[in-house]
Amino acid sequence: MKIGMSHGAGGEVMGKLISETILNNLSKKSVNGGIGLDALDDGATIPLGDHEIVVTTDGHTINPLFFPGGDIGRISAAGTINDVAVMGAKPLAITNAMIIKEGFSIEDLDKIIKSMDKTCAEADVAVVAGDTKVMEQDKIDEMVVVTTGIGILEKGKAIPDSGLNLGDKIIITGSVGDHGMSLMSFREGFGFETDLKSDVAPVWGMVEKALEIGGITAMKDPTRGGLTNAINEMTTKSNVNVLLQDEAIPVKQQVKAVSDMLGIDPYEVANEGKVLLGVKSDLAEETLDAISKDKYGKDAAIIGEVIDNKNNHVLIETAVGGQRILESPIADPVPRVC
Amino acid sequence: MKIGMSHGAGGEVMGKLISETILNNLSKKSVNGGIGLDALDDGATIPLGDHEIVVTTDGHTINPLFFPGGDIGRISAAGTINDVAVMGAKPLAITNAMIIKEGFSIEDLDKIIKSMDKTCAEADVAVVAGDTKVMEQDKIDEMVVVTTGIGILEKGKAIPDSGLNLGDKIIITGSVGDHGMSLMSFREGFGFETDLKSDVAPVWGMVEKALEIGGITAMKDPTRGGLTNAINEMTTKSNVNVLLQDEAIPVKQQVKAVSDMLGIDPYEVANEGKVLLGVKSDLAEETLDAISKDKYGKDAAIIGEVIDNKNNHVLIETAVGGQRILESPIADPVPRVC
Repeated sequence: MKIGMSHGAGGEVMGKLISETILNNLSKKSVNGGIGLDALDDGATIPLGDHEIVVTTDGHTINPLFFPGGDIGRISAAGTINDVAVMGAKPLAITNAMIIKEGFSIEDLDKIIKSMDKTCAEADVAVVAGDTKVMEQDKIDEMVVVTTGIGILEKGKAIPDSGLNLGDKIIITGSVGDHGMSLMSFREGFGFETDLKSDVAPVWGMVEKALEIGGITAMKDPTRGGLTNAINEMTTKSNVNVLLQDEAIPVKQQVKAVSDMLGIDPYEVANEGKVLLGVKSDLAEETLDAISKDKYGKDAAIIGEVIDNKNNHVLIETAVGGQRILESPIADPVPRVC
Repeated sequence: MKIGMSHGAGGEVMGKLISETILNNLSKKSVNGGIGLDALDDGATIPLGDHEIVVTTDGHTINPLFFPGGDIGRISAAGTINDVAVMGAKPLAITNAMIIKEGFSIEDLDKIIKSMDKTCAEADVAVVAGDTKVMEQDKIDEMVVVTTGIGILEKGKAIPDSGLNLGDKIIITGSVGDHGMSLMSFREGFGFETDLKSDVAPVWGMVEKALEIGGITAMKDPTRGGLTNAINEMTTKSNVNVLLQDEAIPVKQQVKAVSDMLGIDPYEVANEGKVLLGVKSDLAEETLDAISKDKYGKDAAIIGEVIDNKNNHVLIETAVGGQRILESPIADPVPRVC
């Protein structure tokens, strides 16, 4: 058997590889009863005294390195900061391992590091450790960046994917599909001219405001595989039934237009500055208000709710009132998106 | 300016790139007064209550993936475990981000993960988080693995590179050059037939025994750039003068033979299962004994001492009694060694 592109694209194919070839071969996958690799959550936790350390890692192979709304420096910092944030932890630091092609422009590297710095500064995160490797010209495509995020939370306060309960409202913190569709449209040659750009941003400030309300039961970063993958993961792990309202899900007009043109579902492509939350019903409006006050949460919306404590299905109700199952995608339709 | 192979090969060229393009562009490089990126130590520390979290990251681009004595799975686990260990911290967990070529054999991936697991088990380390990305066939050479290590120590107990003091003895925990020279010799076609193989191993068990004696002042993992690079870094950071005894430095006969044949200095190539230590003079013999009792420390030796609190030079005394300066290497002479 050979690795295919879909093995790295979120969704079911990747899930199978990870389960069979990685999880099955590893014997120790958690520390001191914390959240470990088997949970396949956004990050792991390591209990230490009154705290838990949150750890998460992400490889960034995005193509191209510079795109409308961001670059590999910004996405490498934000992606990892966000994975820590959606565990409910304050991000403290990232590590930065870069694998660079021989002949790569040092001026571009300079821009990428400056962008990483600016993104970290937004969330008051330090770059504490790093590594630099160089590969021969024909052995790597420009640059790969792997960041690992370290955060901290009070013991027992981690927000897992699996915390959804009957009655919980589902909130998305803004329009979906911006990152994946803008990247796809840029690659197709629509260029920087359109307003369409990536939403890549560190969301900790927004998450912190939402956490203060105290009603969050589950939280996830809807990157590869988009909203559809993230809500399916949360639903399955929580063992509940979720009903989404199609009309309530914010999608920018331009994202819709490009999606129609390319035949790609905007719910299935990556977001890089959004959070998907489950919130206790009685605190949902207040949480939505708190999120909406953040600059990255202006278009937040309640898009559905948990309707049953069984079945593990995501249903979606269309504008005309019909319901269908929103299936987990096989893979993100846009390759090398983060 | 373009990136060259030497920018990723340890040594002076890499040091300049890191300082000018990375350190200068980052504004926050440490957390709560811990050891941060500027120290360019084996890892960073984040103080938390009575403890410090130790974090370190390493990208592995080793070529080939399977080599005498190990594979990319073993080196990815051991390399990061060792960086945590030489900070004086107990390694708890690693994260594993893999970037894999489309078409890569899943059987080989299986072997690599099993090897990683076995290496982690030796040091009782968990793999708590990971990420899998796939790149197109012509965009990456087989596989890159980035691991990040998390460890823990009591507050204030970190062992920095910079702790050498007048009179301290310098200990190396075994023969030098095994990894780099075996890899080079394998690439040159000498094959698996010779006994020469990599020393790649997790050294925490050995380090733990040495730490118990209480005399360690500085500790470093002599990987890229080898013994020469590591001792020069420790000497410069500690602002001392070190005198090494050439005859005391253990080098295997086969490593010497291959070194002579290829014209490569065995002191300048990577080790992957060795530790370089500075130890208080009165505890040096006891520390050496403790190390020698570990399976990875049988050939440990005292190879020199700190002779002055100034000058930042490493001197080496040859068998016939002459002294010369052991200069920091420009770069590791063997590319893609880890």
